[in-house]
Amino acid sequence: SVSKRIVVLPGDGIGPEVCSEAVRVLKAVGDRFSHEFHFDYQLMGACAIDAVGTPLPDVTLEACRRADAVLLGAIGDPKYDNDPTAKVRPEQGLLGLRKSLGLYANIRPITAYDQLLEHSPLKAERIQGTDILIFRELTGGIYFGEKGRSEDRASAYDHCTYHRDEILRIAHLAFKAAETRRHKLTLVDKANVLETSRLWRETVQSIAPEYPSVALDYLFVDNAAMQIILNPRQFDVMLTENMFGDIISDEASVIAGSLGLLPSASIGDDSALFEPIHGSYPQAKGKGIANPIATILSAAMLLDHFNLPEEADCVRDAVQHALDEGVVTPELNPAVVHTTEQVGSFIAYAV
Amino acid sequence: SVSKRIVVLPGDGIGPEVCSEAVRVLKAVGDRFSHEFHFDYQLMGACAIDAVGTPLPDVTLEACRRADAVLLGAIGDPKYDNDPTAKVRPEQGLLGLRKSLGLYANIRPITAYDQLLEHSPLKAERIQGTDILIFRELTGGIYFGEKGRSEDRASAYDHCTYHRDEILRIAHLAFKAAETRRHKLTLVDKANVLETSRLWRETVQSIAPEYPSVALDYLFVDNAAMQIILNPRQFDVMLTENMFGDIISDEASVIAGSLGLLPSASIGDDSALFEPIHGSYPQAKGKGIANPIATILSAAMLLDHFNLPEEADCVRDAVQHALDEGVVTPELNPAVVHTTEQVGSFIAYAV
Ligand SMILES: CC(C)[C@H](C(=O)O)[C@@H](O)C(=O)O
Ligand SMILES: CC(C)[C@H](C(=O)O)[C@@H](O)C(=O)O
Repeated sequence: SVSKRIVVLPGDGIGPEVCSEAVRVLKAVGDRFSHEFHFDYQLMGACAIDAVGTPLPDVTLEACRRADAVLLGAIGDPKYDNDPTAKVRPEQGLLGLRKSLGLYANIRPITAYDQLLEHSPLKAERIQGTDILIFRELTGGIYFGEKGRSEDRASAYDHCTYHRDEILRIAHLAFKAAETRRHKLTLVDKANVLETSRLWRETVQSIAPEYPSVALDYLFVDNAAMQIILNPRQFDVMLTENMFGDIISDEASVIAGSLGLLPSASIGDDSALFEPIHGSYPQAKGKGIANPIATILSAAMLLDHFNLPEEADCVRDAVQHALDEGVVTPELNPAVVHTTEQVGSFIAYAV
Repeated sequence: SVSKRIVVLPGDGIGPEVCSEAVRVLKAVGDRFSHEFHFDYQLMGACAIDAVGTPLPDVTLEACRRADAVLLGAIGDPKYDNDPTAKVRPEQGLLGLRKSLGLYANIRPITAYDQLLEHSPLKAERIQGTDILIFRELTGGIYFGEKGRSEDRASAYDHCTYHRDEILRIAHLAFKAAETRRHKLTLVDKANVLETSRLWRETVQSIAPEYPSVALDYLFVDNAAMQIILNPRQFDVMLTENMFGDIISDEASVIAGSLGLLPSASIGDDSALFEPIHGSYPQAKGKGIANPIATILSAAMLLDHFNLPEEADCVRDAVQHALDEGVVTPELNPAVVHTTEQVGSFIAYAV
């Protein structure tokens, strides 16, 4: 039996609702397996700007540093999106947190659930059995490069840089994951045009001999964006830089039939954060229609990270049970209405 | 009756085969409507590297400058792709040509053909009726920015810059296109993170009042990559920067069911180039299985550019006729084998 401190960052929009359900499930796991989970709630995102004027308050960052893991709901508010002149943005909180905690590897499993094949915009026979693990570099590249304007503000720039070491550490993680899976790793880049992509390609190539059981191949990002839809089963582990990963992994989410099902883990050497891949979905806030499963499955990844695989599987089985029984939010089953809380309670009860 | 000079750049892989068929169709149009089209063949891409050591020879560039339009097959050869140290690449020819001719707007129509709905990986009811026009900025951004390595070669950089004027000229084209269509323009960017995206957003916003009949909205690129698959019919005209456009437009091609159907036009103030969106597909070279329709439809866009809309429609009708009759290459109809040349001849005969 373990004792762990978990910082919870509910964030904005539907974030608090989905976090509540994941916490409910973690509490059920704690009860059943006699673990002690301490939950420490902190502000991050637009809610933090509103409360204290900054998207990532120092006290939040400090709490995250000391925690055994962080569970995040979602951040973002449309009032910042269409204002290109806003100085403070919720996203800065998330980007700052990733950078400060050194969360360099964002890991997203993409699974086609048999029960939900009909919900995907893709034909069932194309996606059935899809099981992809995407490794997205999360603290480098153009999202973190120098950016700014010329003096007359008529031109803007964003600089993309990568160092070999930033590539190596996530590439090793991706190769290791491929060793435990179907032994295939696909690097997504634009090496026919970008110098950073050529560095990615040569760096990943250089360590491939250390993983002789893994077949490495390469795809240009434009082609990858097609192949993921045309034939998703061809992929096992995918590895890519920050921005390509942002695009490709959100795109791949359509395979699952709902964004509301997809979890992620963001891993560093000393910290780990778990969050659904969906956003704050402000239109749904407070309506009880937000799907808590992505956050609950993120909590399962958190349990894996705590080295509690039995507990993690128990959560995943409970989610499967909810899908089997059709205890899901309206976007997946408009016929029988289950609220966010009902879905969370059902899953918590089933663990 | 008109007289026009067309430079043909067959390029690499299947490029020469598909170009032959487009030229065949243009000749048929010339005969039927009594126009004179002069075809001037030039080298570009890997074939130019092999022949004269450079992907874009001066004589090619000069011929393109003097021409009324350029028709391109495809460029690229895998022998350059996995060699991050290659100094000369086929892609430099294409990028150089776009830059030298000032082809700043790449225009790609994405249409779901009723006859081919079953070939799309997407469910028919999601895509039926899709009709999107994508405007991709083609001579700016990170593909053309400064790029290089640190002295020890352990870090690499690519700089993305945009000037307001580069955004304005393509934005006006996109707004004007929306005025003649369904009056909706969607700007795709990452304004919550990138400064260049914020410049795009504020620039496009600033001219929106000049087009009061057009509804402008915005999507983050990660969300756009999902929405294009989830609900493609929501889009009319899409506008985006170079790299996002590369990814999004290739992704959107899955809607049509085959890359082999999709044409593009690249427009500048003094020049225009027309090319299929597919690549050089070296595995298919010389087998007679390459689909010539994308290049033939690119030739139709070339006729539009020459202000010959009746002729252009005549080519499009002939293509429809080939689709109706199932006179298509094996990827679309494996049952009855039609070669590249048979499809081209059928369409040329039908104009
Ligand atoms: C909110 C935003 C900064 C973030 C990103 O682009 O990294 C989000 O889209 C994500 O993928 O986690
Ligand atoms: C070949 C390559 C440089 C090119 C690009 O990325 O622009 C191609 O992918 C395209 O989309 O026309």
